Amino acid sequence: MADLDAVLAAADANLDASLERLFELLRIPSISTDSAFDGDCRRAADWLVAELDRLGFDASRRDTQGQPMVLARGGAGSGPHVLFYGHYDVQPPDPLELWQRDPFDPAIVDTPTGKQIVARGASDDKGQLMTFVEAARAYRQVAGELPLPVTILFEGEEESGSKSLGPFLDAHLDELKADVALVCDTGMWDRETPAITTMLRGMLLDEVVVTCANRDLHSGMYGGAAMNPIRVVAKIVADLHDANGRVTVPGFYDGVEEVPADIAAQWGGLSFDAGEFLGEVGLRLPAGEAERSALEQIWSRPTCDANGIVGGYTGEGSKTVIASQASVKMSFRLVGGQDPDAIRDAFRAFVRERVPADCAVAFIAHGGNPALSLPLESPYLDAACTALADEWGKPAVLTGCGGSIPIVGDFKSTLGMDTLLIGFGLDDDRIHSPNEKYEFSSFRHGIRSWVRIIDALARM
Amino acid sequence: MADLDAVLAAADANLDASLERLFELLRIPSISTDSAFDGDCRRAADWLVAELDRLGFDASRRDTQGQPMVLARGGAGSGPHVLFYGHYDVQPPDPLELWQRDPFDPAIVDTPTGKQIVARGASDDKGQLMTFVEAARAYRQVAGELPLPVTILFEGEEESGSKSLGPFLDAHLDELKADVALVCDTGMWDRETPAITTMLRGMLLDEVVVTCANRDLHSGMYGGAAMNPIRVVAKIVADLHDANGRVTVPGFYDGVEEVPADIAAQWGGLSFDAGEFLGEVGLRLPAGEAERSALEQIWSRPTCDANGIVGGYTGEGSKTVIASQASVKMSFRLVGGQDPDAIRDAFRAFVRERVPADCAVAFIAHGGNPALSLPLESPYLDAACTALADEWGKPAVLTGCGGSIPIVGDFKSTLGMDTLLIGFGLDDDRIHSPNEKYEFSSFRHGIRSWVRIIDALARM
Repeated sequence: MADLDAVLAAADANLDASLERLFELLRIPSISTDSAFDGDCRRAADWLVAELDRLGFDASRRDTQGQPMVLARGGAGSGPHVLFYGHYDVQPPDPLELWQRDPFDPAIVDTPTGKQIVARGASDDKGQLMTFVEAARAYRQVAGELPLPVTILFEGEEESGSKSLGPFLDAHLDELKADVALVCDTGMWDRETPAITTMLRGMLLDEVVVTCANRDLHSGMYGGAAMNPIRVVAKIVADLHDANGRVTVPGFYDGVEEVPADIAAQWGGLSFDAGEFLGEVGLRLPAGEAERSALEQIWSRPTCDANGIVGGYTGEGSKTVIASQASVKMSFRLVGGQDPDAIRDAFRAFVRERVPADCAVAFIAHGGNPALSLPLESPYLDAACTALADEWGKPAVLTGCGGSIPIVGDFKSTLGMDTLLIGFGLDDDRIHSPNEKYEFSSFRHGIRSWVRIIDALARM
Repeated sequence: MADLDAVLAAADANLDASLERLFELLRIPSISTDSAFDGDCRRAADWLVAELDRLGFDASRRDTQGQPMVLARGGAGSGPHVLFYGHYDVQPPDPLELWQRDPFDPAIVDTPTGKQIVARGASDDKGQLMTFVEAARAYRQVAGELPLPVTILFEGEEESGSKSLGPFLDAHLDELKADVALVCDTGMWDRETPAITTMLRGMLLDEVVVTCANRDLHSGMYGGAAMNPIRVVAKIVADLHDANGRVTVPGFYDGVEEVPADIAAQWGGLSFDAGEFLGEVGLRLPAGEAERSALEQIWSRPTCDANGIVGGYTGEGSKTVIASQASVKMSFRLVGGQDPDAIRDAFRAFVRERVPADCAVAFIAHGGNPALSLPLESPYLDAACTALADEWGKPAVLTGCGGSIPIVGDFKSTLGMDTLLIGFGLDDDRIHSPNEKYEFSSFRHGIRSWVRIIDALARM
């Protein structure tokens, strides 16, 4: 085993070079949801393969029906064997005009609260996955090798439904089997307090396309007599919530459980200010279920959101047209035992009931995955909590996460493995939004945190 | 006075050249609602000025805050003095991919029912306005001059709210004053039966922009707690109609009158098949007020339609985002005594009631005008009916029109003048839609119809 302080010192000494490597990765616009960027996703995967190879990993790009996977194997010792996961794909940067700089030209920006790395993917997830890569580099510099067997899996479709993930895991069980998974795609409680996420909301993505007339119509000639698909889609979206913010799809809440008492108690003790949380984005009133706290609404309650809607003329000025077609992209955040397939069926039935008999509806499935929780008695959880407390000088908070990380459910169901969700993002990182950033301190202490966690797990 | 048959013969002899002139005008993409095409609107106006000038009119382009007007004066004799109106601007051609050819590369297409002129604006309104220009040409060829004083006004903002029209009329009362207005922007009853439109629906255009969070949000991090503007806009649109298809804006139906008994009787006698009318565009069920016939729904009842809606991510695939903003473009067709200003106020109050206290709403007015009806005892109406019957061999039907022609209301209120709405479009002309067409027979008999009407009015 290496001298921990020597490894931490090496990590700090590497920091400038580590940052430059992260910038190289951030410059690649690996937007997985838009096929126009398939070449860039492949470039990002190849860049990671080359990087891991230089680090002494046995790394390779694995092509799929969608974006390629990056798979690497390294480390020595008896274990535990860890599988580290991150994703190299990013969200589309639009609306571009709201960025203060080119989203794919990363920069360090000085702010009153410290230095920030600004770029699409800086926090979600390129900056986070590189904290582990750089930790591994530091460890090998000092010890020559990682103290435990490590498999690395980088995905390129996390932002677009992870369609290839399940099939890939099924096809590579032996290569991916490990004792515990480490995923770096979540956040801290605040800039000083580390967190391990033990509850993850699941996700269901579905798109609805309603067609009424077989062509666009003049609203003067047909207005009043011809059904308008925008009216149909609007009614569907409007009907999805009742006056109390509850989702109205029949059976939607089947399998939703209350938060365990001890976790609820810890949450109650957290200094979470809903007004501040919403105020930071210019809002004031929690929009979810009336009788639930904002923290419950984002961590432990399911949701239904329209992520995009379009129909008719959306250019400058006006056009007196009745469109032939209108569509809406929906996403549902799932919790507890909610079944994505059952909810997809119930949602589609709910939609069909609201489409007039002479109009047509089509659906486009964009993937889905159930919610997940980590058993609190896991020994790996103990080791990681201690390591994080040593690095940050504060105990790690066990939190829920509103977002969904499909891989975690698949690790459990396909590989029978629990996952430690340890990340260093902050709520104000603007992931999925213009001017996404990652705190420089998250990057530095993230690298050091992984050094300590690797060391702690190896000593188990 | 000229020999009518000689003028009609001249009109027929000119037909090929008349068509080529129309094609020149159709090649100019004069889309008034999109400022990117301002130069093309000006080109269309200049082309008309030059054309009318060649015809012996005293013609000029008159610039406005928006698109320019074309004003021309010609003809001799004691009158009546007629003011002819048409518009040279066209609707945007999108969705472009549904056109079978370039919308601004006009062509003659042979069909089982006869030759058609296919291009954006072929029917609305370039083909129609040119029927009058070519009629004037034929008359002058034979008689040397038109038999009555004629003022021509071509507008360039009819498809985008006619914002400059009112101010222009107020500023040029003396130049525009006449005994009766002739407007060629409406349709025939069917391909054999001419029609004069005596009831016109008015129009109100308003756009709603709802802003919730001050930036796009990650639906995982904020979903459930942050209000989604798409949900707000959808609720507004969904609430605008009740289960019976009635518009729910308070006071919306104030001033709506029932159709006069004699007109209702004529309509009852028309062979209007709602199933056929809707079937032609792939629909079956009239979507308007349940207790009204489809003909009433499109001719004599007010409507409320969303012409365009957009918010969030509308690209390929999915994006788990909660948008900061969503918007909808609304149009209301007005009848009888409905007051556009009062309805705009009522609509905006209706919208504000549905916007959460921590979200913002902005409105963009895109113009409006009241509905209009022509007095059935007008002597000009008699003369025109006779002329049309002579050309088509069938009496002209007096119809309503679902569309709105702003100028007609302004002629009445500003110039105290009634308008004869005589047009040769057909219901299946696909105006405002891909593959817009104008029947060659509408063009030819339209020209001949105007020759007869000019002659009949001059003999009054």
